[in-house]
Order: sequence, then C-alpha cells, then structure tokens
Amino acid sequence: MSVVVKVSGKLFDEETVDSLNALREGIRGLIEEGKRVAVVTGGGATARRYIGKGRAMGANESMLDLLGVWASRLNAYLLSFSMADVSYLKVPESLEEFIHAWTSGKVVVVGGFQPGQSTAAVAALVAEASNSELLILATNVDGVYERDPRLFKDAKLIPRLTTKELSDILETSQSVNAGGYELLDPIAIKIVNRSKIKVVVMNYNKLSKLREVLKGKDISTIIEPA
Amino acid sequence: MSVVVKVSGKLFDEETVDSLNALREGIRGLIEEGKRVAVVTGGGATARRYIGKGRAMGANESMLDLLGVWASRLNAYLLSFSMADVSYLKVPESLEEFIHAWTSGKVVVVGGFQPGQSTAAVAALVAEASNSELLILATNVDGVYERDPRLFKDAKLIPRLTTKELSDILETSQSVNAGGYELLDPIAIKIVNRSKIKVVVMNYNKLSKLREVLKGKDISTIIEPA
Amino acid sequence: MSVVVKVSGKLFDEETVDSLNALREGIRGLIEEGKRVAVVTGGGATARRYIGKGRAMGANESMLDLLGVWASRLNAYLLSFSMADVSYLKVPESLEEFIHAWTSGKVVVVGGFQPGQSTAAVAALVAEASNSELLILATNVDGVYERDPRLFKDAKLIPRLTTKELSDILETSQSVNAGGYELLDPIAIKIVNRSKIKVVVMNYNKLSKLREVLKGKDISTIIEPA
Amino acid sequence: MSVVVKVSGKLFDEETVDSLNALREGIRGLIEEGKRVAVVTGGGATARRYIGKGRAMGANESMLDLLGVWASRLNAYLLSFSMADVSYLKVPESLEEFIHAWTSGKVVVVGGFQPGQSTAAVAALVAEASNSELLILATNVDGVYERDPRLFKDAKLIPRLTTKELSDILETSQSVNAGGYELLDPIAIKIVNRSKIKVVVMNYNKLSKLREVLKGKDISTIIEPA
Amino acid sequence: MSVVVKVSGKLFDEETVDSLNALREGIRGLIEEGKRVAVVTGGGATARRYIGKGRAMGANESMLDLLGVWASRLNAYLLSFSMADVSYLKVPESLEEFIHAWTSGKVVVVGGFQPGQSTAAVAALVAEASNSELLILATNVDGVYERDPRLFKDAKLIPRLTTKELSDILETSQSVNAGGYELLDPIAIKIVNRSKIKVVVMNYNKLSKLREVLKGKDISTIIEPA
Amino acid sequence: MSVVVKVSGKLFDEETVDSLNALREGIRGLIEEGKRVAVVTGGGATARRYIGKGRAMGANESMLDLLGVWASRLNAYLLSFSMADVSYLKVPESLEEFIHAWTSGKVVVVGGFQPGQSTAAVAALVAEASNSELLILATNVDGVYERDPRLFKDAKLIPRLTTKELSDILETSQSVNAGGYELLDPIAIKIVNRSKIKVVVMNYNKLSKLREVLKGKDISTIIEPA
Repeated sequence: MSVVVKVSGKLFDEETVDSLNALREGIRGLIEEGKRVAVVTGGGATARRYIGKGRAMGANESMLDLLGVWASRLNAYLLSFSMADVSYLKVPESLEEFIHAWTSGKVVVVGGFQPGQSTAAVAALVAEASNSELLILATNVDGVYERDPRLFKDAKLIPRLTTKELSDILETSQSVNAGGYELLDPIAIKIVNRSKIKVVVMNYNKLSKLREVLKGKDISTIIEPA
Repeated sequence: MSVVVKVSGKLFDEETVDSLNALREGIRGLIEEGKRVAVVTGGGATARRYIGKGRAMGANESMLDLLGVWASRLNAYLLSFSMADVSYLKVPESLEEFIHAWTSGKVVVVGGFQPGQSTAAVAALVAEASNSELLILATNVDGVYERDPRLFKDAKLIPRLTTKELSDILETSQSVNAGGYELLDPIAIKIVNRSKIKVVVMNYNKLSKLREVLKGKDISTIIEPA
Repeated sequence: MSVVVKVSGKLFDEETVDSLNALREGIRGLIEEGKRVAVVTGGGATARRYIGKGRAMGANESMLDLLGVWASRLNAYLLSFSMADVSYLKVPESLEEFIHAWTSGKVVVVGGFQPGQSTAAVAALVAEASNSELLILATNVDGVYERDPRLFKDAKLIPRLTTKELSDILETSQSVNAGGYELLDPIAIKIVNRSKIKVVVMNYNKLSKLREVLKGKDISTIIEPA
Repeated sequence: MSVVVKVSGKLFDEETVDSLNALREGIRGLIEEGKRVAVVTGGGATARRYIGKGRAMGANESMLDLLGVWASRLNAYLLSFSMADVSYLKVPESLEEFIHAWTSGKVVVVGGFQPGQSTAAVAALVAEASNSELLILATNVDGVYERDPRLFKDAKLIPRLTTKELSDILETSQSVNAGGYELLDPIAIKIVNRSKIKVVVMNYNKLSKLREVLKGKDISTIIEPA
Repeated sequence: MSVVVKVSGKLFDEETVDSLNALREGIRGLIEEGKRVAVVTGGGATARRYIGKGRAMGANESMLDLLGVWASRLNAYLLSFSMADVSYLKVPESLEEFIHAWTSGKVVVVGGFQPGQSTAAVAALVAEASNSELLILATNVDGVYERDPRLFKDAKLIPRLTTKELSDILETSQSVNAGGYELLDPIAIKIVNRSKIKVVVMNYNKLSKLREVLKGKDISTIIEPA
Repeated sequence: MSVVVKVSGKLFDEETVDSLNALREGIRGLIEEGKRVAVVTGGGATARRYIGKGRAMGANESMLDLLGVWASRLNAYLLSFSMADVSYLKVPESLEEFIHAWTSGKVVVVGGFQPGQSTAAVAALVAEASNSELLILATNVDGVYERDPRLFKDAKLIPRLTTKELSDILETSQSVNAGGYELLDPIAIKIVNRSKIKVVVMNYNKLSKLREVLKGKDISTIIEPA
C-alpha cells in the first residue's frame, strides 16, 4: 500500500522547521511500516506574496496561478532536498511526470501541476495514479467541523463523513471551517469517489505520528468515498 | 485580439475530412482578419476506444484519462501538421508549454493537458493565458437548448445566457442538451468568469465561417461571463 | 538475457483485449524466467486512419510518418499503463531515451521513433541496444512461407532460414507472405546481422506462451543472422 | 546592440511593486531605443529564507544553492509574466537554454543557473553569450565607493574604475561597500574582461531611466574591462 | 523554396577553416536569394575516432552509432555557433525537434538523429519535412562517376541520372566512387523518390558558390527522383 | 561513502584505450569496495580543436566554452557507453540533472555543465551534491610539486597540503606544475572547503588501483580542506 500526504502551505510559513521535521519523522515512520509515500505541498505565504505582486503588475490569472504553482514547487524542493537519502529529488511538474517518477521506488514530492487546479485536486490525482488507498490532508485545523471552529468555540468536530455529506456541507452552508473548501474541491471529490480513496484530515502538528494515523489513531476526521 | 476555438473530438471521427477542411478554412479566415488563433481538440472516438480497452485491462482512472489525453493530442497533431505553414507544429503538453508556444506568433494547437481536467477547462485556460476575449465551442449541436434537442423536437435554442444561468441549468435539470456539461464544466465556468471571456457555442458544420462568427453572425448561443 | 517482443499493430485493432491479455501473460512468463523484456508496438489501424486523413489534407510524408509514430506510441501507452506494476510507464521517443530507460530494470514499451524507419528497424535497434539475444516478431500469420499463404492454400511454412535467405526471398519474388517485408526490412536485417541477434516469427495468438517460445517450443520460423 | 540588466534580489523584497514597475518602464525605454534586453534576477529574501530552512534541516550546500537558484527563478517568472507582451515567458535554466531563447527576439529573463555560481557570473555570461556591450548592475547602493557608505558617511563614490582596480579593492581591503563582492566576483570579472563588456553600476531606484543610462546619464560608476 | 545542404564530415577534419568559411559564405548567398536553409553535418574523423575507441572497449553497435551521432552534433554546433546571427543555435536531436525548429525561420543545423540511420537518410528526411525542393550533397569528390575516380584516372563523371539508375549502379557494381553509398542509401533514395526531391552532388571546395548551384551552375551531378 | 573521480581530458587523447581500461578497472574496484562512483571527464584535445576552429570563425567566448563542454560530454559518453552494465548511460548536462541521476544508484559520468566553469569546479560540485568525502583528481603528473616538474628535474612533490596552502602557491608563484590551476580553481577550492571534501591528486597511469588509493596507498598528494 502507498500513502499520499498533502501538507498545507502554512507548514512552510512557520518561523521554525519543527513542523517540517515532524513531517520528515512521520514519513520515515510510514517507510518503516513498508509503505511508499508521495507528498503534495501547498504554496502558502510565498505563493500569496508572489500572486499579490503579479496581480498588482497586471499579469493574467493563469500566470498568477503559475506563480502559485512555482511557489509550491519551491516548498516541494525544500522538503525533497531535506530527505535526499530517500527522495526522488526532482519535483515532477505534471501527473505524467509523477507517474514515471513513482516507478523509481523513492519518496516523490510534488507541488502544483497546472493553473486552475487546486492542490487538493493534485493530491487526489497523485493518490489515484499511485493506486494509494489513503490520502492524508494535513492542515492547521483538527478536521472537519459542523461550524467554523474559529468563529464558534463550541463547534463540534465531525469524526466521520462521506464525500457526499462533505459536498452538501460545502454547498449549502458557510458553517464549515474556512479551509473546508481547501480540503477537497469538487474535482478532488470526484476523483476520490471514482477510485474509492479514503481521506483522513489531521492537524499538521501531529505529523510525526503518521505511523499511528495509519493504524487508525490520532485521526480527526475520516472522509469516505461515496 | 486572439481567439480560441475548441473543437469536439467528434470532428475527427467523421469519415471524410470535410469538417477538418472547414475548420482550416475558418482559421485562415480569422488570421486574415488579423487575429491570432489557438485550437483545442477533443479526443473523440479514438479516446473512447483506448480508454475502453485500458479499463478492460485494469488500468487506473488517472492512466485512462492519460490515454484520452494522448488521443486528443493525436487529433491535435493531425490538425497541426495539416497547417504546417502557419502552425507551431509541436503540440504543447501543459499550460506552461502553451504559454511559451504562444509567444511564437503561430497558430498553436493543443489536445488535453492533465488527467482530471476536461477539454473545456483546457480551452478556458488557454483562452485566459492568451488574453483572448473570445472562446468558440464548436460541437455537433447548434447551441444551448432549453431541453435536450435529441429528445424533444420542439426544444428551443437559447441565444444568449450567462454562465450563472448555464450553471443553474446544468445543476438543476437534465433538460439541456446532453453535451451541455461538455460545453463548460464548473472549472471552465470559474475561469471564463474570473477573466471575463465571452463564449460562443456553434455547430462545427459552420466552421468555415469563423470570420462571420467573429463579426457576430451565425452564432447560435452566446454565453456571457457573470 | 533479455528479450524484445515486437507486436504487430493488428493486435491493437481487435475488438476484444484477449490478445493483449495474452501478451501480458506472456511477458509475465518471461519475467518469471528471469528475463528482462522490451516491447515494440506497431501502429495498426489507428496509424492508417490518421495517415489517411493527413494525406487527404496535404501533410507531407515525414509528418504522415510522424502521425503513424504517434499512433504506435498510443498503442504503447495502452500496453504500458496496463502493466503499471512492472513497466517503466513512460514511452521512450528515441533510442537514446530507450537506452536510458532500460537501465531502470523495468519492462520498457516503445512505439515508433522516427519517420522513415520501420517498426521492425526500431525493434532491431532496441534488441541491439539492450544486448538481447532474441527478437520475437509476433504477427497475424504463423511465420515465413514459401508462398503467400493467403493466396496459396498449400504454401509451406519455412521453419528455419538465414537473414541472407530472407533477403533473397524478399528481393527476388512476391511469393512470401504479404507481411514479409514488414517482418524485417533491409535496415533491420543489417542490424540483426551485425549484432548476431536471433529472430523468431510467431503468431500473436500464441503470445501467452512466450515462456515456451523461449525454450524453443511453439516457434514457427527462426531467422538466423547471417 | 543589446543590454543586460542584473537586478538585485532586494528589488523583489520590497513591499510595493514600485521598483518593479520602474524596471519595466526602463526596459520598455530600452526597447524603444531599438535595444534588445536580457534581465538577470537575484534571489533576495526568498532565497535566504529557503536556504536558511534547508540548512536547518541538513540539506547539503549544493542543494541549498539550488534552493537559492529556484527562488531567483521565481523572481524571474514574476517579472517575465508581468511583461507578457514582450517577454519570452519561459525562464531559461542554463546558458545553453538562454542562448537558444535569445534567438527569439524577445526579452529573456533568467534567475540563477547553477550552484556555485553567483548571479553576477550568470549576468556576465548572459552578456557575453548575447554579444552585449553593456551590463547594468542595479542594486540598492549608488555605485562603488572608496569605503563602505553605510559605515562611513563621507565615503566617496568612484565614478570610473577598471575591473583590475575593482579586483584590487575587493582583495586588499574591506573598504568597499558590503555588496562589492556581489557586484562582480572573480569569475564575472574574468568574463567581462575576456569579452570587453562595459559594466555600469546604478541604484535600482533609478531603473525607470535606463534609457538615460544608455546615453551616459545617471550612471554612478562605470567599470571598464581591463 | 528552401534548400538542404548535407556536408561530409571530412569538411570538419581539415586543418584550416577555409572550407567552413566557404560553407558559411554559400549559406549567406542562399539566404540573400530568399531561400531558407537547413544543414546536415557528418561526423568525420571525430566520429571514427570515438567509434574506434568505443569498439575497442566493447560498447555495442547501437552505442557506437550514438557516439558517431554525438560527434556529428559537435560538428553541427561548431557551424551553428559560428553563424550565431542567423542560426537557431540549438542542434535538434530528432526529426520532430527539427520540424519544430524549422518554424523559427532560422537556419537550422543538425548532425545525426538515430543509430542505424545514415546522415544521407537524415538529410533526405530533413529535406522532406521542410518541403525543400533541393538537397545538395557536398563531399570531397566532384560527383557520381561511372567508375571509382580514385582507382581509374579516366573515370567519367555522370552529369545526370535518376535514383533508379543510382540504385542499379550501387547494387550491381563496385565501379562507382567509394563514397557512392554514402551519397544516398536505400532509405534516402526511398524518401527523395516519394517526395520528389531533386538531389545535387558537388565538391565541397565549391561551397562558397551555393548561390550559383541554385541557378544550375557548377553542379557536378544531378540525381532526379524516379 | 561515495567517490568522485575527475579525469583529465588527456586520458581520452591517447592513441590506445589502455588508460581508459585502467580507469574502468579502477571504478569496478571501487564498486566492489561498496562505494558509489561518479566520474567527471575533461575535454582534452577534442575540446581544444573545436574551440580553436570556433575562435577562428568568430564565435563568442561563451559559445567556445560550450564547444568545450560538448567535447567533454563526448568523452563522458565514450566512457559511459563502455560501462553499460553499471552506468546511468545518459550524461547529465547540469548539476540538477546530476543530482537526480545520482538517485538511480548507478555510476554517473558527466562532462562539463556550463560555460565559465572549470571541470574542477564541476567535479567539486558533483562531490558536494553527492555527499562524497573524497574527490580524486587524475591527471598526467604525479601530484602537486613545489616547482614545475617539467622545468625543474629536482622539483619535489608535496605529499600533503591544505587548500589554503594551494591557494597561496597558485597566487604567489608560477613554480607549481602548469596544470596546477587546472587541479583546483578558486571556485572549486571554495566548494571543497565549505563541504570539507578531501582531495587526492594522482597520476592517471595508476587508475587501475583506485581501490588502493581509497585505502591510502599510491596517493601522490592529499589536499585537505582548510
């Protein structure tokens, strides 16, 4: 079995490298369990900064998206170069390139692929193309909530839901956490459904324990394909 | 100004090359009007045949999508090689490659880019990246109908609607023409909206008259960004 | 030792995937015998269809050849994606790329390389570059005949001949099977001769038994380098 | 004649895009004068941030340099995408790629090429390969000073010196401005000498006036090849 | 109209650059006549030296051919870099790459493409792909002779023959000049025939007069497609 | 541990392949010791010949450097193709490409990367990027001498020195062997210093004994990072 870990760009925005080290520790844990691992990195603040400047200078939306893609690849290179003994090192720039890179047996780290495509969609494609059964979404909230946990202190975390239920929540209310849409957009949902990929949402401050997550512990929210 | 023409893969399935010749004539007409032209080709029957075989042999969905992408590129090469005097000849395999190809001043023909991405989304991205004001969708029906014209003889063609109205129709009913979703999927709609690209739907048997379409004639349906 | 299997494009034209499954079974058999395997695929009906349309539209002969090459690569991708666990996945587009791909230890599947070069020549080059001792040509006839078996019911199959004898037959008479020239053209013959590669001709309906062929059974015709 | 402008990464660190807009204005001025323009961008704070994190995670020095190179390319893409009508858009990743890109007639923007190579060396190579007679170094000081102007208020700017004199200053004292070494390292000096390229140092807050600089005005320091 | 000039590798073996300068002069003459020009370079002594060493070290024949291809590309780079103002600079490594390079409007210089393919075949493909009407073969003999001019002082030059006649001479006798086979091999003959390309054989010491050759002067032998 | 061997281009200039065979034997010895090996090849006489001709034809210095780079890659291909069973076969053209190639577990052979960069600098970068502890410089003298051994018969070989001492010798006198500067230029010294890479200088006629060198025998000069 193989596992895809999608990490929010926020992980790369932190002052220290503690979270990145936790991620590395988690990945090594998965490898020790005999799993193959692919990682998808978001663009975070670097992406927003470059997109903001590009927009101020009148670049078109596709090119702004590309700046975001390049920023996410910079994050991917940082992670990849910091695991030189186990990683593929080159950051694939398309799914075709990923598919080929995956045959190497190495940990493959990617950022974005294309304008008009969310990192969540990239992660779902990477999970599908690598025949992974598990896609882990690591972000700075604990999971999917009934209401936005930043607005409502008493918001309750949903431990288990289907992609159908997630879609309904995303479409009909604003009561999910702001990052809800970031978790899985319609394209990503379509892909995890068609290939029956189980999705786990977790806080990235627990990334060192990916091995436990694999065993069903420390998971905040499980999203089942519908 | 530049124009993007998205042609249904069905154009390449026909026995004769009459429609392809009409397309070439139309493109030359646009060039004579001083327009730059990009073309996006669907995969048609070749795509379906290879996807069908791949599925029968157990390839995963991402790889099936890739077979469809390669088939659409074969269609793109056929068209490109048949306009060797004005075309870029190489078929770009990603938006990044397209963006660069576009600086050549040539007619650029592309097929698909990525798994999980419709040809409509590719066409919208290509239109956005090339700062085109017009995206022409050429298919085998005349335009957008209130009800499926193949089921209801009296279905009425909608001459003008917004992407918002198209979304509503697509979501809430099955009364549009079957190819409705193929015309513009949610990603494509998002892109034409954010970059204010006007969309024209037309029958591909009128492709030789692209020059007229540019002038507002022979258009079946105009979809305005909302 | 390694083995190169060249399969006629006709294999990909069939309605069912039975023959393709047989090919996969045969390849797995070879791998179990400890052999490395490369596969070269013809373009078949897809190639002819696109070449026909391109010619009708006035593309030059080199570009028509390229359409055939792209069609054969589509066949190669279909096969490669259907053996994702053992194949290199990417289809090399030149001998240089093949040589590098071969160092991966995977099954490498290629279509055509270049205009003006037969798939037989590609297969011979691939066999030479991979230091293979055996090149298997799988087609829809049983082997090399003294006379065209489709015209003469009593045509006798030739169980063993040299490339010199094959050349003589090809040059001096029309009595070989129509596909004779497709089997090995002069360039291919030159290559199998200079590198002493043994060639086996077999019917592709026996592809599941490649392991037996390796052991000298079920072979129709052996062509020895001269 | 063609001109190479090397801009310090600091230009990309500023909160606003005013300096970047000034750069664009300056480049358009040069084009209007009939000059071809290549731009080389430094990595700035983005580079330092990623290198810092990579070092904290134990990446080797070559890979840290590569992170800096990728950061400088991100700056290059920002500039390139913001001049889409005149630029080559793709950012070349080696001198070979630059040389080919240069034949396009477009403005070519590059970041770094290789680990172990300063942006100044890249700029000198780009100037040499494009047969440019002028290399403009735009940074956040006014030019070359006899003593570090940030430490000594009365430091005097040197209006004209030779690369030989610059080398002597760089080797034998610390009294130049801190960025002195950044201006031209030994490799860059070797290249501007061997190809007789004139170097101009200027403050990047005057970049909108590149056209004037070309005519010999507003120049702070001229460094003549020795 | 466009013209392809194939120059023997011997041109690059000479001590001086006089012949190379003559070639450049000839190419500029063609450009002044409004022609587009592609050049194909042989590998010459450099190729033979590397192939000899590779063979002594046991490299297989495909790899030896590749060494020859790389040597011919080195010759191509020498020529290309020496015409930097008019050439495409990058040396295409396949016909696909050439076809795309050709759309640039520049002089494109190539060496070899593939193992198992003569430079003559490359030249014929390049002529076909670029829709050239004329293929000039420049070598160190004056043309095609009835008998080998190096053995028979009274050998008579054949001013005009068909590819059919050339084939007959090549197959049935050894009385042509030794380089006869180098001029056009069977694959090259097949290509010039199918695309009706006129071939001119000339001594490379007359290369400065390519403009005259174009007008029908100073031609030694014309080979007409049959 | 891994080892980088930089071999002078002179090795490829010899009439026989004896030295090349010794190199291959030495590399196999290192592999048997469980070491990974990268090789960097100089350009030698081939480089000088092409650079000489290019200069005579007016190519600019960057392009002349590129001719030298291509020549060194030809040497690299010769070596790589002659060790097809253990080598990566493709010759990486940049450090980025090398880094990725290195993950393959194969012997990777490179020539030059970039104009303006010595082969010594390439070798130092390759050693750094591959985390090698040892960089072996094989040339046609025995090591570093106090005075030029070709001018002074009694010149004494220096068995051990630091990069600091080497720099001093290189800068302040001409009494080192002519190839001294070729051994390690300032960029190379900077790299071996920053990554603490030990450098061994040896005569290439002892290359078959690389295994002994690894064990500290047959070393002429050790240069320690300072």
